[in-house]
Amino acid sequence: MEADARIEAELRAALGRAAGTGCPPRFAAALEHAVFPGGARVRPKLCLAVAGACGDPDPALSGAVAAALELLHCASLVHDDLPAFDNADERRGHPSVHAAYGEPLAILAGDALIVLAFETVARAGAAAPERLPGLLSLIARAVGAPVGIAAGQAWESEPEVDVATYHRAKTGALFVGAVMAGAVSAGADPAPWRLMGEKIGEAYQVADDLLDAMGCADAGKPIGQDAALNRPSCARALGLDGAVARLRTLVAEAATAVPDCAGAPMLRELVTAQAKRLVPKNLAAAAA
Amino acid sequence: MEADARIEAELRAALGRAAGTGCPPRFAAALEHAVFPGGARVRPKLCLAVAGACGDPDPALSGAVAAALELLHCASLVHDDLPAFDNADERRGHPSVHAAYGEPLAILAGDALIVLAFETVARAGAAAPERLPGLLSLIARAVGAPVGIAAGQAWESEPEVDVATYHRAKTGALFVGAVMAGAVSAGADPAPWRLMGEKIGEAYQVADDLLDAMGCADAGKPIGQDAALNRPSCARALGLDGAVARLRTLVAEAATAVPDCAGAPMLRELVTAQAKRLVPKNLAAAAA
Repeated sequence: MEADARIEAELRAALGRAAGTGCPPRFAAALEHAVFPGGARVRPKLCLAVAGACGDPDPALSGAVAAALELLHCASLVHDDLPAFDNADERRGHPSVHAAYGEPLAILAGDALIVLAFETVARAGAAAPERLPGLLSLIARAVGAPVGIAAGQAWESEPEVDVATYHRAKTGALFVGAVMAGAVSAGADPAPWRLMGEKIGEAYQVADDLLDAMGCADAGKPIGQDAALNRPSCARALGLDGAVARLRTLVAEAATAVPDCAGAPMLRELVTAQAKRLVPKNLAAAAA
Repeated sequence: MEADARIEAELRAALGRAAGTGCPPRFAAALEHAVFPGGARVRPKLCLAVAGACGDPDPALSGAVAAALELLHCASLVHDDLPAFDNADERRGHPSVHAAYGEPLAILAGDALIVLAFETVARAGAAAPERLPGLLSLIARAVGAPVGIAAGQAWESEPEVDVATYHRAKTGALFVGAVMAGAVSAGADPAPWRLMGEKIGEAYQVADDLLDAMGCADAGKPIGQDAALNRPSCARALGLDGAVARLRTLVAEAATAVPDCAGAPMLRELVTAQAKRLVPKNLAAAAA
């Protein structure tokens, strides 16, 4: 099965458990709304690409890990959109979860998606439980405290912030987690994969800054938020062309950082090809 | 080590990881505030009592499971206190997390505590990883969707609610989880333990209704919330004496439901003794 179809099937199965029999009907709808239709599913695709490059001997486990990463990403978006944070009424061109279902169900949907992510990995790990402690710790590190997504968001409430630290936690950590968890789910040592995850995470942050600065119909969310909220932005610091050049450098470094393994050449090509999608079209020619 | 000291030490160790090096300082303080000083630590004590009755061959695992249950309970309280839910500025006689640190850090603290709970169990399970899928699934079921704490809270956003279903999810599920996870962490079959957990959960809900209806200095939170928010309450339905009688019946049934095991007699005594603390003192004589 193609990666896209595998990811949607895994997410569908996980949602079927959480939003199934016994779930309050509006809550089930809010959970569904948080996960479908999805965005680009970048993190689970990256996870499966790494698992595949490592031979992917246990697709049930790598598929569950990929779904868990996306569930955690969705949870962070639902909470990030809340009035206490970005106060965004739209996400991916649709009403955000709190806009559609109210703040209580949005908070609870985020909570339940975090729980579902860990449950999804745990149940898929029954065939190779010895991988679970490492896998779950990696995933927890990517999304919790002290250096995961929650900590990254929390830097916005501090009087002083180191921008690199902030971005590494808020955006980078889950990319590092996706790459390293993909390796572990295939039975590989995750350590050599960290650098690649860091480079991709950094590239993605630059791309996100560019999208926010320029606006993009695909983003389906309010634009100019970084400037409006006075958040640090690579596009504001380097200018648009400077940011595009930085993005290209990071992608090249990510491709170079792919560790030697059976699928390394294909993975390097995939990283480079996917990265082209990150550069807004009207800038691609100018900065090429 | 006594159960109380074990629980505090496990919680301290978990918080040390989450609020340690790299954590934004105000976020670290908010996490600490959410967990210390604690309440009665009822759920982790129950978990350790069950594990002990089953022989507790792996105290590192049962201790981690106990801490995880309390972290999840604390997370649910932090989110429950938010303006979108109970809008409670106090908890256990102190400012609630959002009152002390603002809504963004309160939302994120809840998220990070959920993550920390699963990470705590996963890392302690390295010595007996084959127990992790069952353990983590049990814990997830107690706190997520469709029938855990998040789902229980979500019933408050539905136009129609079955009161028993609501209480079973919002309060009962984590007691059932504590009892069954205590058994699994000691290598025992959890199924025979479910009934005891259900009875204790139901008793605790009645006690909570009584506390809310009567007010109690120990609760350290606003009273009369059930009536003010028109929430279902056993104390309102049965009257105070009726609710005390119901509580006593449930405790007796919980003691009877303790499955046969080496520590069953001691556990039955413990349940009965602990339950006395649940009856508000000024009602204990009247309804005896």
